[in-house]
Amino acid sequence: MPPRFAARIIIKRREILKMIIVGICGGTSSGKSTLARRIKQQLPCSCVILSQDCYYFDQKSKPMEERAKVNYDSPEIFDHDELLSDVNTLREGKQINTKGYDFPNHCRADTEALIDPPEVLIIEGIHVFYDDRLIELMDLKIYMRVDTDICLLRRIDRDMKKRGRTLESIANQYRETVKPMYDKYISKYIDKADFAVMRGGKNIMAEEAVTAYIEKKLKQAGVLN
Amino acid sequence: MPPRFAARIIIKRREILKMIIVGICGGTSSGKSTLARRIKQQLPCSCVILSQDCYYFDQKSKPMEERAKVNYDSPEIFDHDELLSDVNTLREGKQINTKGYDFPNHCRADTEALIDPPEVLIIEGIHVFYDDRLIELMDLKIYMRVDTDICLLRRIDRDMKKRGRTLESIANQYRETVKPMYDKYISKYIDKADFAVMRGGKNIMAEEAVTAYIEKKLKQAGVLN
Repeated sequence: MPPRFAARIIIKRREILKMIIVGICGGTSSGKSTLARRIKQQLPCSCVILSQDCYYFDQKSKPMEERAKVNYDSPEIFDHDELLSDVNTLREGKQINTKGYDFPNHCRADTEALIDPPEVLIIEGIHVFYDDRLIELMDLKIYMRVDTDICLLRRIDRDMKKRGRTLESIANQYRETVKPMYDKYISKYIDKADFAVMRGGKNIMAEEAVTAYIEKKLKQAGVLN
Repeated sequence: MPPRFAARIIIKRREILKMIIVGICGGTSSGKSTLARRIKQQLPCSCVILSQDCYYFDQKSKPMEERAKVNYDSPEIFDHDELLSDVNTLREGKQINTKGYDFPNHCRADTEALIDPPEVLIIEGIHVFYDDRLIELMDLKIYMRVDTDICLLRRIDRDMKKRGRTLESIANQYRETVKPMYDKYISKYIDKADFAVMRGGKNIMAEEAVTAYIEKKLKQAGVLN
């Protein structure tokens, strides 16, 4: 454990750490993780990104053909309790272990690597505005508003190149679960946000405004000079 | 003219002033001017708000009954050239005279009072994202995204109390021009914005993020320490 965190944990053992929590929600391939990474790169302090994609319920008890039929776009497929528990552990100044997900095999791929509690925590995912207990912990809620056809183009590209899927499998999933869940849940989350970012993760203005806001809050809290 | 502006104008007579221009667009009573005022209050530098409502074409050449029939929600009823010209005059470090509009009589009410070029210029109105020449000058484009029924409630309240109108006249105008122009133009402007603010002008997060962004830009430009 790096000495700076050890010191803080000793001092604040029984307190909740002052940590700025940012939620980034939006449809598939709307630029959530890009925006999260760009904010992290610009911040002059410690920042951890928790991706909801790593909190899918494990499907390994099912046969492989069953696993492929699961609706991975429904809010119920995510372990909201576990994500909330990890966020609260970090807020208490304690470490969590790194969560991961093996997409081709639909099973969890957590590791023993530890994550220290950061000054800024970014939580991103398609359903991070689903659980009100998590929303209440967020200091800033951002929704990525991108035309669904543009998102689809990005998703096809990502899933074929990085997740080894066929166009047919992507198209079937899109029609059967991605689009219905977007219409039913994800498109509605915009109303839970403080603001919506247009044109995706490479929107420089939004990125700079969010970073400036976080820096100002950190200065007010005495974390940054 | 205050000495600080005199000095700047002499130095930069042939230059374009470094001025941060923020556009705030959105439907009627969506909180545009509230957000503009709150940003201005928080900024530690000079800030001018130009309201597009003061740039209606004068209707005084028409008889009174004709004036009431004009579509005041169409983009064509605003003098975009004059607004653009005022913005460019301020950018050149020169003063403009204060524009005004007499709503009950549908005619211009400009005054001789002069406005100095500010460090931050906020332009707000239902059609400030209509003219691409103006959009190109904006450093930050904000769209107010509020449910139209909530906006309507606020508009009825404002127009009855502040503009001396009857509910019947407000309802007729709403059905005949406000709603059609919102559907045709204003609702589409969201795609021209950098980000959209949810829940109107009292959204503290959005206000703080915008203010933090402007302050950061002013520091980068050497205007603030």
